[in-house]
Amino acid sequence: MPSLAPHMTSVPASGIRRVFEMAMRLDDVTFLCVGEPDVPVARHIIDAARRAWADDRTGYTPNGGILPLREALVHKLARENDVHVDVEQVWVTVGATQALHQAMGLLLAAGDEILVPDPGYTTFTMNAHMMDARPVPYALSPSRGFQPDFDELENLVTDRTRALVVNSPSNPLGSVFSEEVLRDLLAFAKRHDLWVISDEVYEYFTYGAAHTSLASLDDDDRVFSVFSLSKTYAMTGVRVGYLVVPRGLAETMRTVQEAQISCVAEPDQYAALAAVVGDHQPVADARAHYQENLEFAIALLDERGLSYLEPEGAFYLWIDVSHVSRGDVARWAEDFLVEKRVAVAPGSAFGRTGEGWIRVCLAATEESLRKGLTAIPAPVRSE
Amino acid sequence: MPSLAPHMTSVPASGIRRVFEMAMRLDDVTFLCVGEPDVPVARHIIDAARRAWADDRTGYTPNGGILPLREALVHKLARENDVHVDVEQVWVTVGATQALHQAMGLLLAAGDEILVPDPGYTTFTMNAHMMDARPVPYALSPSRGFQPDFDELENLVTDRTRALVVNSPSNPLGSVFSEEVLRDLLAFAKRHDLWVISDEVYEYFTYGAAHTSLASLDDDDRVFSVFSLSKTYAMTGVRVGYLVVPRGLAETMRTVQEAQISCVAEPDQYAALAAVVGDHQPVADARAHYQENLEFAIALLDERGLSYLEPEGAFYLWIDVSHVSRGDVARWAEDFLVEKRVAVAPGSAFGRTGEGWIRVCLAATEESLRKGLTAIPAPVRSE
Repeated sequence: MPSLAPHMTSVPASGIRRVFEMAMRLDDVTFLCVGEPDVPVARHIIDAARRAWADDRTGYTPNGGILPLREALVHKLARENDVHVDVEQVWVTVGATQALHQAMGLLLAAGDEILVPDPGYTTFTMNAHMMDARPVPYALSPSRGFQPDFDELENLVTDRTRALVVNSPSNPLGSVFSEEVLRDLLAFAKRHDLWVISDEVYEYFTYGAAHTSLASLDDDDRVFSVFSLSKTYAMTGVRVGYLVVPRGLAETMRTVQEAQISCVAEPDQYAALAAVVGDHQPVADARAHYQENLEFAIALLDERGLSYLEPEGAFYLWIDVSHVSRGDVARWAEDFLVEKRVAVAPGSAFGRTGEGWIRVCLAATEESLRKGLTAIPAPVRSE
Repeated sequence: MPSLAPHMTSVPASGIRRVFEMAMRLDDVTFLCVGEPDVPVARHIIDAARRAWADDRTGYTPNGGILPLREALVHKLARENDVHVDVEQVWVTVGATQALHQAMGLLLAAGDEILVPDPGYTTFTMNAHMMDARPVPYALSPSRGFQPDFDELENLVTDRTRALVVNSPSNPLGSVFSEEVLRDLLAFAKRHDLWVISDEVYEYFTYGAAHTSLASLDDDDRVFSVFSLSKTYAMTGVRVGYLVVPRGLAETMRTVQEAQISCVAEPDQYAALAAVVGDHQPVADARAHYQENLEFAIALLDERGLSYLEPEGAFYLWIDVSHVSRGDVARWAEDFLVEKRVAVAPGSAFGRTGEGWIRVCLAATEESLRKGLTAIPAPVRSE
């Protein structure tokens, strides 16, 4: 066997998947490690997919998706995100995952650098390695209220820096950047002529804080926006997301989509269309459910004296376990899984700044949350 | 706006898509340009998908696909292809398209070279450019009976050559390599320690000739095999294919699949499972239909004095139009579309060796074929 391309062997595995797959081999595990909504897909979405199959809508579609879906997304972006684009800027993708992969592939050549949040979603780092580029983490640390440190960002920029990844609401933190912080991030990107990739897959799930789309503040076509239907409509395994690109890239997008996936499955696009134009009560219900879980979980953590970041968005809790993790939270999470049968994501899977923390998914039953959170050892109180 | 990664702007657009999209804007066009089967998806496949949706099977699956599908593919590979692998070597992908993209990404770094058939499927070349690698065409020319020239292949190898793409049955040629030729190609790859990517998406459609899977001849783990359900089961727009990888790559595959697509849509995997394990009479019927069309088309071309390569596989006819195309068959195909309202794929879209030829898709009605083939000007007979 010859050897693989050298940079491909340096792509780090997902530390979330590792715990998840260990957990799959054990019995009676409480799963709080994966971002999988626990609510069902709404009836009208399922009906639309079943109708598409019954009508044998199983042919190639345009590379960017079926026109009614792209048009519906254009309207949604204008209405919900204050982002005003034409259909040729909206590209239907295999979830946010492929949207992100496509965007990073377009922007990064071998040796380039990209600024990624730390802690931040695992695939930002993985994709950078896949492009033979270098992910450069910028810290979102507790000591700065989990906000970006602009002095640090300025110091991290080199002549190879090509792009900045922003993720608000944040996975894993659940923090939401204010419009002011987003404006500052965009100004920073402009100052250094960087692209910005804005991952907004949790846009519909905020609690109190308002979600602002970075592209709504963009006045010189430097923002790629990554959206997904997975979390919003609890349809992670239907694999539909979309990438919103700056003007003038339609020809390039057509070509790279053709080569990478050809198109998203046609029946799934009809499901997505029903989701986007249909009744959003199930989304509101899901949000209420996550918020109830959040309140329940916080009360429990407070009672037990555990520290956490109170999230303003997404559906995760970022919990401090540094009193027990002894500088190796990945190892601790594995032991915790084996001993307590509770699967959580170790913070270190999201970057160095996540050491000593865990991410708990709130899209679960109250009973699972009670079981999982009660199993975490409380710190010894100094009274 | 900053600039894209330089190599991404050099990815050539698909010359097939170009004609297809021109044709979509015209009325009354006879479509013979795209590889889209004209038969419906079998009932049992549609039923399985509808059942999966009804059961809300819409969650993340393992990166490689649902276990029953991977197991079914392992059995199919052993039974139909004489390829003996375990489930961790079979990765369910977004059609053959993403399988190919994934394989090329694993093997190619910037500046590497990959040998691709000329004429050959458009995405071989497009993907090489996307990896910042150089596609090096090896000719399958009429003067050599559309077979590889091993002297030429030896001359094309450099110290940057990393892989060889083989496609049998060939798109666009319809030619099928004999086991002897495949053994020689594998020996050539071994001699230069190259990977081999074997695209076998037309495996079920041969007419007389036997299809041999390259991996069945591989004794040292250098073959990546690309398969698809799209053409076999007439489900191009369901986007399910699979990549069969050498042993020992499971961890890497898990990581790159996670970063690129996460997984294929779950309902579509259930449709695929039904296709693979279900009744194959519809596949036999489709093959008979393509063969009838082939015989009809050949009789018509013979009668009109047009030259063509008689295909042994796939569902295309490779027709010589050099007597009218004046050295620019892409231009000729556009004029032909506008004037005669018949869409065919210009041979030059598949590489330089395709100049003067067109590819006609036989997956059509007899009426469409009659209309399309009659519109091609016959050569003046010298009597």
